[in-house]
Amino acid sequence: MEAEGLIAHDVLAVVLRITGTVPSVLLWQRAREPQDGRWALPGGRLGAAEDVEASVRRHLAEKVDLAEVAHVEQLSVFSDPHRGPAPRRVATAFVGLVPSDADPAVPADTAWHPVDALPPTAFDHGDITRAGLERLRAKLSYTNIGFALAPEAFTISELRRLYAAALGHRVSATNLQRVLTRRGVLVPTGTTAAPGPSGGRPAALFRFSERALRVTDPFATLRPPSCDPSGSS
Amino acid sequence: MEAEGLIAHDVLAVVLRITGTVPSVLLWQRAREPQDGRWALPGGRLGAAEDVEASVRRHLAEKVDLAEVAHVEQLSVFSDPHRGPAPRRVATAFVGLVPSDADPAVPADTAWHPVDALPPTAFDHGDITRAGLERLRAKLSYTNIGFALAPEAFTISELRRLYAAALGHRVSATNLQRVLTRRGVLVPTGTTAAPGPSGGRPAALFRFSERALRVTDPFATLRPPSCDPSGSS
Repeated sequence: MEAEGLIAHDVLAVVLRITGTVPSVLLWQRAREPQDGRWALPGGRLGAAEDVEASVRRHLAEKVDLAEVAHVEQLSVFSDPHRGPAPRRVATAFVGLVPSDADPAVPADTAWHPVDALPPTAFDHGDITRAGLERLRAKLSYTNIGFALAPEAFTISELRRLYAAALGHRVSATNLQRVLTRRGVLVPTGTTAAPGPSGGRPAALFRFSERALRVTDPFATLRPPSCDPSGSS
Repeated sequence: MEAEGLIAHDVLAVVLRITGTVPSVLLWQRAREPQDGRWALPGGRLGAAEDVEASVRRHLAEKVDLAEVAHVEQLSVFSDPHRGPAPRRVATAFVGLVPSDADPAVPADTAWHPVDALPPTAFDHGDITRAGLERLRAKLSYTNIGFALAPEAFTISELRRLYAAALGHRVSATNLQRVLTRRGVLVPTGTTAAPGPSGGRPAALFRFSERALRVTDPFATLRPPSCDPSGSS
């Protein structure tokens, strides 16, 4: 029924966490038709009294402790008329990020799956998952979004592992430290990590200077050197 | 009526063009209730057989020659339950960019308005316009999106004027040329502009190396120097 052009509106969340050498995504297994047995993204119907941001938090809270989700942002609208069985549903998808040291409890039907070995996914949820991962990869290059993947404090070696896993390619620890320090994203905590079993010099610990998203490739490069930042819009 | 949770879905477009020293947005004046006389963004109802991308192009084509719109991208979903009168409508908003040298014909009810002096706007279309401008400003710092604001060929002085108008602050022509050249965004055409009325040395003309959006703050900085790009994902 599309009488009067009315359409059901869903929200969906691609919740990503780096575990080991690849990102994992939080999926739950459907236990009824359509797509019985397939794995779906957390989400559900937009309620009458909420906007999509409130709705995705309400639905996510059924699957994971929201306090463990360090960042949530809108990804994109998925609206192919044939993306699911009738009646038509349009979905607003979000990306959520959980730090690597968090291990939130999840319901029995829900599990983390490595994105390079997804189980059979429901509807277009595999495509939406891949779009979420692409968004994360892009934002790692021009924002401080790594704060939402990393523990509160970490060594450069640990951070390099997280970036390499998220990006899917090798990352130089030296370059990573230089780029993120130059951008004011990374600051030393002044402490060191406990030495590993093999001993050696204790590694310095770092933290992200902010734990809210910002673009780090600075507008400042486009400003004249004498420009007073307080005078700009 | 929100029986069964069905909601009308609209698409809206924030079409921006730099004219003079500020961006302008394309608005049309409503000629019936609700919001009679107020100015609205181009858009309309999502059709049964189209996705939001096809829909926004169909609705935009009623107001402006699509061939003049150099770039269109999804902005965000606007879904406040009280953003308009009942029945509820959710909108997927897009940003569209028209180069400064284009002057497409528009219908009698439609006009360009400077974003710093908007007429009374309909519903939440003023907020959506401001969100579209913020998206453009952010992307100027980490993508090649300037290609969609600029003519095919331009002097650095002309490009500086476009960036300053879009960003709303002063921009150094020297820094702009250095940053965009280093990122491989800007290339000389090998020709010069016709001298102005005051004569002087003819200015070199440049063009954007690509006319499709890409992130220019390179992933490469996170790769080890010896990394073979073809071996990365």
